[in-house]
Amino acid sequence: MNDPNPPTDHVGLEVLSNAQCDELLADNTIGRLAFVSDGDVVIFPVNYRYTNHTIVFRTADGTKLDVAANHQPVAFEIDGYDLESKTGWSVLVKGIARYVMEETEEAELSDLDLRPWAPLTRVRRWVRISPEEITGRKIV
Amino acid sequence: MNDPNPPTDHVGLEVLSNAQCDELLADNTIGRLAFVSDGDVVIFPVNYRYTNHTIVFRTADGTKLDVAANHQPVAFEIDGYDLESKTGWSVLVKGIARYVMEETEEAELSDLDLRPWAPLTRVRRWVRISPEEITGRKIV
Repeated sequence: MNDPNPPTDHVGLEVLSNAQCDELLADNTIGRLAFVSDGDVVIFPVNYRYTNHTIVFRTADGTKLDVAANHQPVAFEIDGYDLESKTGWSVLVKGIARYVMEETEEAELSDLDLRPWAPLTRVRRWVRISPEEITGRKIV
Repeated sequence: MNDPNPPTDHVGLEVLSNAQCDELLADNTIGRLAFVSDGDVVIFPVNYRYTNHTIVFRTADGTKLDVAANHQPVAFEIDGYDLESKTGWSVLVKGIARYVMEETEEAELSDLDLRPWAPLTRVRRWVRISPEEITGRKIV
C-alpha cells in the first residue's frame, strides 16, 4: 500500500487493488451482510471465512438463509478503523448468496474453524457468496 | 444486561431492550449504512453520532448523499465482538435518511466533534437518519 500516487474514487478515497482486497478479506473474520428482506434493507454481522475467493459463513434457519436459498443479490462488507491515527479502510463485495448443498463441499467447509454468529439452537447451514464485484477504499 | 431470563428472537439470540440499543448507539461512533443503489445493495462505513435519537453523519457529494436526498429507506448497523470471550452484539436501525437543510439545525450539528469517513475533498453535507425501528441482539 505504498504507491506514491494510488488511484482514487470519485470522492477522493484511495482505491484498493484486487490483491489488497483479497488480503483484507483473508485476514479478517467478522463482516456484515446486507440484503433486501420484505422490501426493507437489513444488515447483520457474520463470522465468515474467505476461501477459494468466496465468502462462507454458517447460520441458523431464518432470514439470512431464506435470502441465500433464493439466490438473491447481497452485499458483504468488512472495514477497519484506527481511532488513534484516524485512518481506515473498507471492502465491499457484491454477489449472489446460496446454500451449500453438496455433501463434499460441506465436508470441505467443516474443516474451517468457523462458528456462526448465532448460538447453536437451530440447524445450521453453510452459505456461500460468490463475488461478482469486489471494491475497496482506504483513507489515509 | 443482567436479566436472568432475557427475551430471545426466533433463532435464540438475546434481544436487547430499547434502552440498551440507545446506550450502544450513543457509546459508539463507527457504523455501516446500507441501501439500494441502482438495484444493488451497497454498504458503507460511516463515522456517526447519535443525537436526539437520530443518527447523523457527514459525507461528501456522491452515492450516499444521493440516496439521503431522496428520502429513501436505509439500514444502519453497529456491532461489537470480543474474539476472546466469543460474545457479541449488534444493533440495526431502519429509517429514512435525509439531508439536513436548515441552517439552525446544521449549526447545532457542527458542535459535534464529527469527521466524515471520506477526506475533505468535496463539499460536505449533514445527513440525518430518523429511526423507524431499532432492534438489537446479543450473543452470550
